[in-house]
Amino acid sequence: MPRPLRFAAFVMNTTSHITHGAWRLPEARQTDFNSLEHWVSLAVELDRGGFDFVFFADVVGLYADHRGSWEKFVESGLQIPSNDPSVIVSALAHATENLGIAITSSILQEHPFNFARKISTLDHATRGRIAWNIVTSLSANAWRNFGYDDITPHDERYAWAEEYVDVVYKLWEGSWEDDALPQDKVRGVHGEFDRVHKIHHVGKRYRVEGPHLVAPSPQRTPLLFQAGSSPAGRRFAARNAEAQFISSPSPDAARDLIADTRGLVAEAGRHPDDLTFFQGLSFVIGSTEQEARRRSAELDEYIDDDTMVAHAAGSIGVDLGHYDLDTPVGEVESEGSRSSLRWLREAVPDREPTVRDLARLRSRNSRVVGTPEQIADVLGRWRDAGVGGINVINYTIPGSYREFIEHVLPQLRQRGLAAPEPEPGTARRKLTGRDRLDDRHPAAAYRGAFGR
Amino acid sequence: MPRPLRFAAFVMNTTSHITHGAWRLPEARQTDFNSLEHWVSLAVELDRGGFDFVFFADVVGLYADHRGSWEKFVESGLQIPSNDPSVIVSALAHATENLGIAITSSILQEHPFNFARKISTLDHATRGRIAWNIVTSLSANAWRNFGYDDITPHDERYAWAEEYVDVVYKLWEGSWEDDALPQDKVRGVHGEFDRVHKIHHVGKRYRVEGPHLVAPSPQRTPLLFQAGSSPAGRRFAARNAEAQFISSPSPDAARDLIADTRGLVAEAGRHPDDLTFFQGLSFVIGSTEQEARRRSAELDEYIDDDTMVAHAAGSIGVDLGHYDLDTPVGEVESEGSRSSLRWLREAVPDREPTVRDLARLRSRNSRVVGTPEQIADVLGRWRDAGVGGINVINYTIPGSYREFIEHVLPQLRQRGLAAPEPEPGTARRKLTGRDRLDDRHPAAAYRGAFGR
Repeated sequence: MPRPLRFAAFVMNTTSHITHGAWRLPEARQTDFNSLEHWVSLAVELDRGGFDFVFFADVVGLYADHRGSWEKFVESGLQIPSNDPSVIVSALAHATENLGIAITSSILQEHPFNFARKISTLDHATRGRIAWNIVTSLSANAWRNFGYDDITPHDERYAWAEEYVDVVYKLWEGSWEDDALPQDKVRGVHGEFDRVHKIHHVGKRYRVEGPHLVAPSPQRTPLLFQAGSSPAGRRFAARNAEAQFISSPSPDAARDLIADTRGLVAEAGRHPDDLTFFQGLSFVIGSTEQEARRRSAELDEYIDDDTMVAHAAGSIGVDLGHYDLDTPVGEVESEGSRSSLRWLREAVPDREPTVRDLARLRSRNSRVVGTPEQIADVLGRWRDAGVGGINVINYTIPGSYREFIEHVLPQLRQRGLAAPEPEPGTARRKLTGRDRLDDRHPAAAYRGAFGR
Repeated sequence: MPRPLRFAAFVMNTTSHITHGAWRLPEARQTDFNSLEHWVSLAVELDRGGFDFVFFADVVGLYADHRGSWEKFVESGLQIPSNDPSVIVSALAHATENLGIAITSSILQEHPFNFARKISTLDHATRGRIAWNIVTSLSANAWRNFGYDDITPHDERYAWAEEYVDVVYKLWEGSWEDDALPQDKVRGVHGEFDRVHKIHHVGKRYRVEGPHLVAPSPQRTPLLFQAGSSPAGRRFAARNAEAQFISSPSPDAARDLIADTRGLVAEAGRHPDDLTFFQGLSFVIGSTEQEARRRSAELDEYIDDDTMVAHAAGSIGVDLGHYDLDTPVGEVESEGSRSSLRWLREAVPDREPTVRDLARLRSRNSRVVGTPEQIADVLGRWRDAGVGGINVINYTIPGSYREFIEHVLPQLRQRGLAAPEPEPGTARRKLTGRDRLDDRHPAAAYRGAFGR
């Protein structure tokens, strides 16, 4: 029997993450994002309900202007305010048993020495349940928040990212040997000096002496997520990532993408199965198909197309607010943005998609509408296409997750599409059966590399 | 009646913080620092027991070499490993009601845009109970972990620190107006664009566009601690800090230091009482004086003089491991270190102190030994000298705090030296009666400064 799917709640420490306008639903509580209790109670519900991960997206700046201004983002709560996800992790970890906790962090926002220390501390605090989504920041405002004039060009960002992960790999895998911390009260030996090493990293952007300040944690390197869809991003993921987010328009498209990416993984010297793919989907559930469709139509009344356009524009680098909704996307996209709109052309294969399509499909393309049985049928097709996990996008918090747990997961368990019960252990163990990276991963090269 | 003293548990996310060797005591649990539960249970005990703060010291590198090596630090657990304190705060906050939580963070380790966001997120998560101890990093290894050849000279560090706090003040106080986040579902207005502002900071080291990514939190600017004892450090504290750590050898010495520093505070345009002084002390308690003295002598058998010397050397920039313990400190100190050894000359006023004095007094100088009544007598003298709070240094965790809560605090409450019950509210309210900074503080200048 194929492996059960893994389920991640795809959230952000903000009000309006993906389904813009849904915060205005009467039952929506995502406006409570400033409250720690809001996140703790969601995590407890996910943990008990059988979710494998809670995944926090993140940004460190505004999206590109919409109609020449950032007004729309503030007015609609489009990822502003957005709070730091990393500092609420420990509260979620303390309240839960098995839930993996993934956070996003950009190479732009934190020096790798500090970041490595933070993640190692969290790996201890979560007992190995932390995961990192590596990003390079697509927002010019983000770069201007950190002293740059503008966004660093794409391929240069990925070269930078390669050095960034090299530094943290050295700290996580190479600086401390296992058994370096006997804490022997009788001998008076807290740490074994011969087993702790400086890394002396010297690169284009970073010089880091070390040693790492944190002793080996359950996973050492956290479970590594990555979402890049550009050629450089996919090469980076093929080399480094253990899980990748995809937004395929169909299981067939996913099958092709996965086969192609597994080829890149093999080219990078890893096993093709070393990467697990998480498809992003949202769900509208009914006890009948009719009820589900009615609920889906009601939801549409809340979805804010203009904010959806503003968000979509951020990923293609054009201010779409100046264009009529019927404008063909071919007229607005730039050379560099073509790959980031591939999903749209795949979703509208029979004609040239418009700005309106772009806005609407960002909310509807990923939406699965039906009874729990129908949803299970759909998820079976995604699993058969090679998808290993589902990133569950919400309309409301906690409603969307509560409904999925109550109505869909039992159906999935019956079919072997979801694990029969929550699985203990580290984040990596949930995907690979191991606590530490395998020897094929580039980080493994730093094991034992810094001995005297 | 004078105000009751405030009590902070002075800890570090490491095994051996100040009283080196004490980790080998049979009942010592500070070796469990990697465990989140270790810290949560301590925080709960402090919160219920009537402590006002838990304070985390921190470093981001090794101390200067001891006998030409960092071997001693690893072997004795002298602040290595040391975990990131900031990421465990939310778990502590979620488990406690009133406890203030202070963390140390250096201007070296994190970009101010990211740091401001992290702290604001924590201020929301703790409901206003977060405090920040501003430091500039004294360790050359720390600077080499962050790409520098060596430590930045002292006065330049403080100029840098002034720009750093300017950036975060602008983000905390000036970027968002109050009432900027109506989250009005009916009108569809999540945020009021006219009340959110970019800061456009341009300085010597930083360019930060903004806006701040986090909406106004209970305190906005966290309660500000600072510990500098050099002239530049004291000027910085006089301008910025709301609480300052001191390590005076006696209440009389503290009285002079406090009067002098209050003068600097007034010169900086603030009220002399805007700064609260926390004296660091440790306690050995007995039901009789004899029992307390016996316990103190037993403790001394565990204190590791060589590690105490290694730690002390870090603050004066000389490798004392090469010197005999009877060497007068005058022969080993450098010009730049003279001010940091002032405490030692004050503690040994009648002769030239030696390296042995330096090591021993770092453990004994701050030690108060006696019955709860005798300890209350001593603390009354510190309070009468103008000290506003006590930083309680531990020998063992949780033992030292448990004993203080069980035996000393009841005695202090009877005398009005401790608050009758735990006080609710923000960290700042505990010291000043206010949630937000007063108008005299330099950060207040940025309120309303960035309107359109």
